[in-house]
Amino acid sequence: MLKNWNRPEKPGDEEIEVRLKAAKAKLGAQQMLIKEHKLPVVALFEGWGAAGKGSVLGKVILNIDPRFFKVFPMDIPTEEEKRKPFLYRYFVKIPEAGKFCFLESGWMDEITRECLYGGWKEKEYKKRIDSVKRFERQLTDNGYLVMKFFFHISQKEQQKRLHGLQEDENTSWRVSDADLWQNQHYDKCLKVYSQYLDDTNVSTSPWYIVDAKSKKWAQLQVLETLVSGIDTALKNRSIAVPLLQNVFPMEKMPKLSEISLDKALTQEEYKKELGVLQDRLRELHNELYRKKIPVVIAYEGWDAAGKGGNIKRITGALDPRGYEVHPIASPEPHEKARHYLWRFWNRLPKTGHVAIFDRTWYGRVMVERLEGFCSENDWQRAYNEINEFEKELSDWGAVILKFWVQIDKDVQLKRFTDRQNTPEKQWKITEEDWRNREKWDYYEVAINEMMKKTSTAYAPWHVLESNDKKYARIKALRIVIEEIEKALSRA
Amino acid sequence: MLKNWNRPEKPGDEEIEVRLKAAKAKLGAQQMLIKEHKLPVVALFEGWGAAGKGSVLGKVILNIDPRFFKVFPMDIPTEEEKRKPFLYRYFVKIPEAGKFCFLESGWMDEITRECLYGGWKEKEYKKRIDSVKRFERQLTDNGYLVMKFFFHISQKEQQKRLHGLQEDENTSWRVSDADLWQNQHYDKCLKVYSQYLDDTNVSTSPWYIVDAKSKKWAQLQVLETLVSGIDTALKNRSIAVPLLQNVFPMEKMPKLSEISLDKALTQEEYKKELGVLQDRLRELHNELYRKKIPVVIAYEGWDAAGKGGNIKRITGALDPRGYEVHPIASPEPHEKARHYLWRFWNRLPKTGHVAIFDRTWYGRVMVERLEGFCSENDWQRAYNEINEFEKELSDWGAVILKFWVQIDKDVQLKRFTDRQNTPEKQWKITEEDWRNREKWDYYEVAINEMMKKTSTAYAPWHVLESNDKKYARIKALRIVIEEIEKALSRA
Repeated sequence: MLKNWNRPEKPGDEEIEVRLKAAKAKLGAQQMLIKEHKLPVVALFEGWGAAGKGSVLGKVILNIDPRFFKVFPMDIPTEEEKRKPFLYRYFVKIPEAGKFCFLESGWMDEITRECLYGGWKEKEYKKRIDSVKRFERQLTDNGYLVMKFFFHISQKEQQKRLHGLQEDENTSWRVSDADLWQNQHYDKCLKVYSQYLDDTNVSTSPWYIVDAKSKKWAQLQVLETLVSGIDTALKNRSIAVPLLQNVFPMEKMPKLSEISLDKALTQEEYKKELGVLQDRLRELHNELYRKKIPVVIAYEGWDAAGKGGNIKRITGALDPRGYEVHPIASPEPHEKARHYLWRFWNRLPKTGHVAIFDRTWYGRVMVERLEGFCSENDWQRAYNEINEFEKELSDWGAVILKFWVQIDKDVQLKRFTDRQNTPEKQWKITEEDWRNREKWDYYEVAINEMMKKTSTAYAPWHVLESNDKKYARIKALRIVIEEIEKALSRA
Repeated sequence: MLKNWNRPEKPGDEEIEVRLKAAKAKLGAQQMLIKEHKLPVVALFEGWGAAGKGSVLGKVILNIDPRFFKVFPMDIPTEEEKRKPFLYRYFVKIPEAGKFCFLESGWMDEITRECLYGGWKEKEYKKRIDSVKRFERQLTDNGYLVMKFFFHISQKEQQKRLHGLQEDENTSWRVSDADLWQNQHYDKCLKVYSQYLDDTNVSTSPWYIVDAKSKKWAQLQVLETLVSGIDTALKNRSIAVPLLQNVFPMEKMPKLSEISLDKALTQEEYKKELGVLQDRLRELHNELYRKKIPVVIAYEGWDAAGKGGNIKRITGALDPRGYEVHPIASPEPHEKARHYLWRFWNRLPKTGHVAIFDRTWYGRVMVERLEGFCSENDWQRAYNEINEFEKELSDWGAVILKFWVQIDKDVQLKRFTDRQNTPEKQWKITEEDWRNREKWDYYEVAINEMMKKTSTAYAPWHVLESNDKKYARIKALRIVIEEIEKALSRA
């Protein structure tokens, strides 16, 4: 895109002033519409060093009330961020509905930097491009407006600016070795940037090349583009988004009704196996930590199926400094105001750590679907979005374990009644549990569809037959151990 | 405390089992009371390397539902954390009301480490002890239960355990150089630890020395202590806390009624000064960044006093990558469930950055006081708590600027009416603003008290006379520049 770029014609100074004034007023008015229509806006400011991204950004935000935006200066990833998936530090920064976030720079900078000095090969680059395209598409599909600006200046102009900055003691620290390197290897960088822009230029989140030679003119281009992007996005609110074909390898899953639930263990068998398996898992946890492999364990299942007790048998074998259990309830307001996967991205483990989710992102295709908390288009899109999310985790090197804890309706009734009649257990049973029980058949349809559509080869579902809780616990431990062993043998 | 410690007598194995069972059951029952009475519990696990803190912690949490606790393994501070005040990484981890948090290790470990290898002198140590004592007292005063455990083993026992860990490939990474150093310099460490324990052993959050030679026995000591601590804390709920005398140097402030509001600038004077001052501030921002000095600017003032416009004249001169404006509205549920200063600790800038607060922590002694959102004891304690908070910022090296934006009642009415009659401004005026206006006189009393009690020498209030907004903006810029210049000349 940069190589055969047609520089837009710069208007006269007077015209720029008039149009700037109009664009600023428009943006000022739009912020209220954005709030009202709950439109979240993500704007990336990418481009050459010293192209003036920061100073234009500084002007743009003066038109927006501080309640409605955040600016994130993105440096190179911290040690902590390096222990999370690539997209982590971007995903956790997405704004709430009705607000702006500005990133300077964004993921383009990180990826092209790796290409230029990180010694990346074609394969790593392609993987990142896939991640980024999915990420941006998930944002726009979920109602985000994504605006991507690339600030362009010539080699000569950049050189002039870098020298100017270097000459002043108070600005010389702004000129990094990377900036100087970039200027010296301008053509090489141009090639990489141009390639990246081509590879990620899609109609739902296209690139805008900003002629950054004059600051005011650059500011005008950004403002007018932003304002017109917002106009379009506001018109597109609540339009359904086409569903995508599945592109991931799948495993075949049985229907819930085909699963036999008469498996059981005696107390003796259970005690013996439990001790052996927990000892083994304890050893493996050390090895995982040492080899820095992350583990994500997801529990879903009927109310009173025994998720909590099952999880306890896993955590009983783990070092508390290396795992966390995340009980997932309905989202808090600041979580609800973002992409539904945001709160799960926020809770990902570091490499070498274990995160256990008691209920998960699958709420989207179960409770949110059945209670109408999201639109049909939303939950139908979610199967693919979730497969993509888990693909990120898998590519990152995570062991992913997804358990469906299965019981039959009679067993649930027995356990509900027992909870109701035992004072210490009463807090565990609510009116909602009884209401959900009435929707058992609807849930069963949703669960069968979920297991069919999200049992990817890299993250298949495992059913834990839990009419006998002891059996389910031992089975879970076995699967956890087996999958960790496989991952360790590959590491 | 360690030097003349009387090892508690270890009971027989059978008795340990019986008491363990009782303590576990008790803790299991207490978690519901804790939730009901909204008691937050902070537990620190400190002690010698290889003393078994992690393994005891792992057992303790098995008795608590994962919804009610979080474990934080505290490593050495990250680069990001090093750019915040010392207490930052601890303060942001305090639990919500009704929940536990377990730190392993806590702030003792960080401080004693600095004493042992950081080359700290008496002065730095004393400063930290002051910080820690204030921090723990603020937590307990605000209804937190703080339980501090020190896991104690002998030099010989530690040596044996470290060797054991080293021999196994999967656990050898657990033995750090620091652990080995500790064992080799056991007596030196003992002295430092003992001193720290003595210095921070207060009746509201005393130390418990855990005899950690036997794991089960250690577990029992922790569980029984925890359970009895919770019992006591539950009995103490909603008891008022004694107010403390002021210990900070204060500056004398005028009463609001004594402030003359007839100061004004012509449009010409304003334009000219604004340009000059913003250019100067722009330069200073670079220098602040280079010298890594953080700046905290706090705005309070009457509704429609012109805070927003005033802030914009400051940010207009700043690089957007180096500042953030934090508009403070009423707290979200997860903020309300914690110490009222928590959300401000969370929003502190990094060194070299500027954080501007549009309304602040002073809400505690204004709106929360007047609307009864906290108890009288709470807001009366807050003056000192806030002075302590700002002392932490000041000791960290921050430039602290607190502005009270002052107008008179007539000007407010004029501006309210203007907002109401201008379509683009209507969103800025709400029913609440009119209600607050009716309480003007009550607010004036609260504001006078606040300015009198929180104008410390290190963070005094500045009044901005804003009947003429231009005058107030220029005055704010002048003060900001002056205070930054002072700080830079000291740096």
